[in-house]
Amino acid sequence: MIKVSVVGAKGRMGSHVVDAVNGANDMELALTLDAGDDLTLITPDNTDVVVEFTVPSVSLGNVLALIAQGVDVVVGTTGWNDEKLAQVRQAIAEGPKPETQKVFIAPNFAISAVLADYFAAKAAKYFESAEVIELHHPTKVDAPSGTAIHTAQAIGAARKAAGLGDMPDATETDGGSRGQVIDGVHVHAVRLRGLNAHEEILLGNAGEQLTIRADSFDRGSFMPGVLLATRKLATDAPAGLTIGLDQFLDL
Amino acid sequence: MIKVSVVGAKGRMGSHVVDAVNGANDMELALTLDAGDDLTLITPDNTDVVVEFTVPSVSLGNVLALIAQGVDVVVGTTGWNDEKLAQVRQAIAEGPKPETQKVFIAPNFAISAVLADYFAAKAAKYFESAEVIELHHPTKVDAPSGTAIHTAQAIGAARKAAGLGDMPDATETDGGSRGQVIDGVHVHAVRLRGLNAHEEILLGNAGEQLTIRADSFDRGSFMPGVLLATRKLATDAPAGLTIGLDQFLDL
Amino acid sequence: MIKVSVVGAKGRMGSHVVDAVNGANDMELALTLDAGDDLTLITPDNTDVVVEFTVPSVSLGNVLALIAQGVDVVVGTTGWNDEKLAQVRQAIAEGPKPETQKVFIAPNFAISAVLADYFAAKAAKYFESAEVIELHHPTKVDAPSGTAIHTAQAIGAARKAAGLGDMPDATETDGGSRGQVIDGVHVHAVRLRGLNAHEEILLGNAGEQLTIRADSFDRGSFMPGVLLATRKLATDAPAGLTIGLDQFLDL
Amino acid sequence: MIKVSVVGAKGRMGSHVVDAVNGANDMELALTLDAGDDLTLITPDNTDVVVEFTVPSVSLGNVLALIAQGVDVVVGTTGWNDEKLAQVRQAIAEGPKPETQKVFIAPNFAISAVLADYFAAKAAKYFESAEVIELHHPTKVDAPSGTAIHTAQAIGAARKAAGLGDMPDATETDGGSRGQVIDGVHVHAVRLRGLNAHEEILLGNAGEQLTIRADSFDRGSFMPGVLLATRKLATDAPAGLTIGLDQFLDL
Repeated sequence: MIKVSVVGAKGRMGSHVVDAVNGANDMELALTLDAGDDLTLITPDNTDVVVEFTVPSVSLGNVLALIAQGVDVVVGTTGWNDEKLAQVRQAIAEGPKPETQKVFIAPNFAISAVLADYFAAKAAKYFESAEVIELHHPTKVDAPSGTAIHTAQAIGAARKAAGLGDMPDATETDGGSRGQVIDGVHVHAVRLRGLNAHEEILLGNAGEQLTIRADSFDRGSFMPGVLLATRKLATDAPAGLTIGLDQFLDL
Repeated sequence: MIKVSVVGAKGRMGSHVVDAVNGANDMELALTLDAGDDLTLITPDNTDVVVEFTVPSVSLGNVLALIAQGVDVVVGTTGWNDEKLAQVRQAIAEGPKPETQKVFIAPNFAISAVLADYFAAKAAKYFESAEVIELHHPTKVDAPSGTAIHTAQAIGAARKAAGLGDMPDATETDGGSRGQVIDGVHVHAVRLRGLNAHEEILLGNAGEQLTIRADSFDRGSFMPGVLLATRKLATDAPAGLTIGLDQFLDL
Repeated sequence: MIKVSVVGAKGRMGSHVVDAVNGANDMELALTLDAGDDLTLITPDNTDVVVEFTVPSVSLGNVLALIAQGVDVVVGTTGWNDEKLAQVRQAIAEGPKPETQKVFIAPNFAISAVLADYFAAKAAKYFESAEVIELHHPTKVDAPSGTAIHTAQAIGAARKAAGLGDMPDATETDGGSRGQVIDGVHVHAVRLRGLNAHEEILLGNAGEQLTIRADSFDRGSFMPGVLLATRKLATDAPAGLTIGLDQFLDL
Repeated sequence: MIKVSVVGAKGRMGSHVVDAVNGANDMELALTLDAGDDLTLITPDNTDVVVEFTVPSVSLGNVLALIAQGVDVVVGTTGWNDEKLAQVRQAIAEGPKPETQKVFIAPNFAISAVLADYFAAKAAKYFESAEVIELHHPTKVDAPSGTAIHTAQAIGAARKAAGLGDMPDATETDGGSRGQVIDGVHVHAVRLRGLNAHEEILLGNAGEQLTIRADSFDRGSFMPGVLLATRKLATDAPAGLTIGLDQFLDL
């Protein structure tokens, strides 16, 4: 049984993690902490893996404290940048178990979204055309989504590496209907009440189309990815800092 | 048996019409004319309905000549405007059978596209959000498609008539990913090798979505609509000029 | 302001109704009752419309009691049959306001599902082929869904009324992949973790396809329909028993 | 420039190959042969790669003859079995260039279909549920399609290898709506006028769905795959018999 503690256990995501751990046959819930609780309660004795889902302003501090405790951490909080990541790497090197400490950070725990992004990049060089449509609830403040930008960049890079030129396109398109062009890939953003987070990648050749679509219907969509990462940290994940769920998928 | 003559019989669409008429159990092919042929060969004796699929520069002249011959006409050629339509109405009034002459002109003979447009307008007032995605082959010169513009206008008009306000939307969308706004409705245009002509209308409420999609895979997609219009002219269509396939659908 | 009371207010659906009424600008929440509460607390003085979402075993009794109280009722509970409906009609006739009493019962309050069903039936006679795919979460015990059966029956009836014959089909299909045939229409049921309740109707002619899809992502999908019915009962709905949300849609 | 000869050049597929070769910047059309023509006209002097698209009854003989001529062959004809493949291998071993002879046979040249099949198998172990829907024109005699069977088998094998158990399912499903079960995977076949050849794989976890769809709109959909295989044979494909387009994709 993997002993899992949750930091941010009362939050929107953290409470889902608690439920997911309780529902997993190979895990048992250890400590559940939230704002104000003492992180030093978490030790290698009571915890194999900590799942941290809080807010960007406190997440770095939590991760550094947990490394100092010598426990492995799966981080679901967003807001990481190169500087923060460097601090994590330094803390691992200076921590109690520099050779075996594991920290995992992912911008997206939805397996379907990570796979869609990966498959689209793999497929891109075999198609003459590629476009990305992302669809979200209308209370999302920005457009397009970070995931869609990443997918477009990955497609653009794959096309460039394969020596593909510009895609064929309409020539009279003044009104903006053709969307935003990111690294040569047209990206369209739909905002529709009722939706949550969805992405569709369209790839086309003469006479054929490949469509890859990831639907995240609710926050529960992150849990299979969180459990997968937790299991990897408890078994064969490499030591050090690992970034991105694709690193843990057998692709 | 309905006797059908085809004008523009060697053209891309006209040759499909010839095949479709030959394949219809209740029709027989009368004359097949093309550029340079004498339209006065077509008479009420040999023809019940003429299907005219030529080019905008000659279509008006053809239709006027066929009205003068006293035969009913289904027109698939595009490029009509109010002035040209007025000439058709005048020709009917001054022609040999002003009380019974029938002329039918439609911008789109694909039944699926006409129904999608109609259903979207019907449904619009029951949804908080609505967006239009049209997808075409990349050699189509313009974007968005005329059909998508019409659908957006119809949705916008239905929302306005129902007293609906603006749709909820993202607030940080500088890059153009949100597409073109037509009468308050966001319209996205995809151009992808392998596609032909497709339109998808997305309608959303809290917790639910209605999607209506029309796919036209090839020119054959117009034939069921052409045959339907031809049968209507041969039976119970009203006299005079009728515009739009929705007029002949029982909706 | 429409005064709305909720019976079954602590139930899964009822609690959503309470939230939806509280969120509606033109409604105010009157009484919220649940099992064991006294229905005679609800009177025309404090309530314009009651929304009843309980369980089949008690719903008929509740509705009869509410009719006796002289308040109008929107019923979301399932499990109605001809005998029960006859009892409702009799109770209206013998109740305190036989000329003005309004009762509304609907098997499905999701507007998108009701519209999809209606549009599919409207479109059916214009297409050579039609099939229904319904998709649900895998804890739904039965397959296919009642909605899919209804849609298939409606398509079958429309085809028969239009004189259409059998659809073209494969001839070597021993293994069951072609699904269940209901009134001549093939119905396929998908059961997939992550889904809620979805239905897709495919209609095809040579070269073209019309697809109509309704997605119900969660129980909230019923609320726009519940509010719409509540508003109709408070304004221009006809007296007596009305069945089906399509009766209240302007189609 | 790759010199390409076509055997079966007047056939449905062969004529498309002729057009595709003529349209490729890096290829030139060498000989075009059809039934009755002398295959010994094709030699290493005039031809780098032969594309053979005929019928099962003559394809083996053609391939053996072309191996005897010492030219490399891309075979698009179907109907291969273990016995025939063994004859091809023997002919290579006994032919004029046993060390360098290349023969490529593929059951499906649509890149989108091959990728969809491959991606589905890769993703399968990460999802609790998986189903396959294939959709074809109604003049296809059999159901389900060979491709769908292959996809279901690949998903089933991936699940078994990962130790996944049965998928969750409805329990009351007498009528056949749940489709055909192949290696534990439900397969549904739609037959709809207007369609050509399409496959959709649905993968679901709590809260999320991954959908992979391949559309083949017409025979032209095979040409990118045929050209890709031809280029591989002219460059870095391994000697001997290679089976399946996935062998030539960088996955």
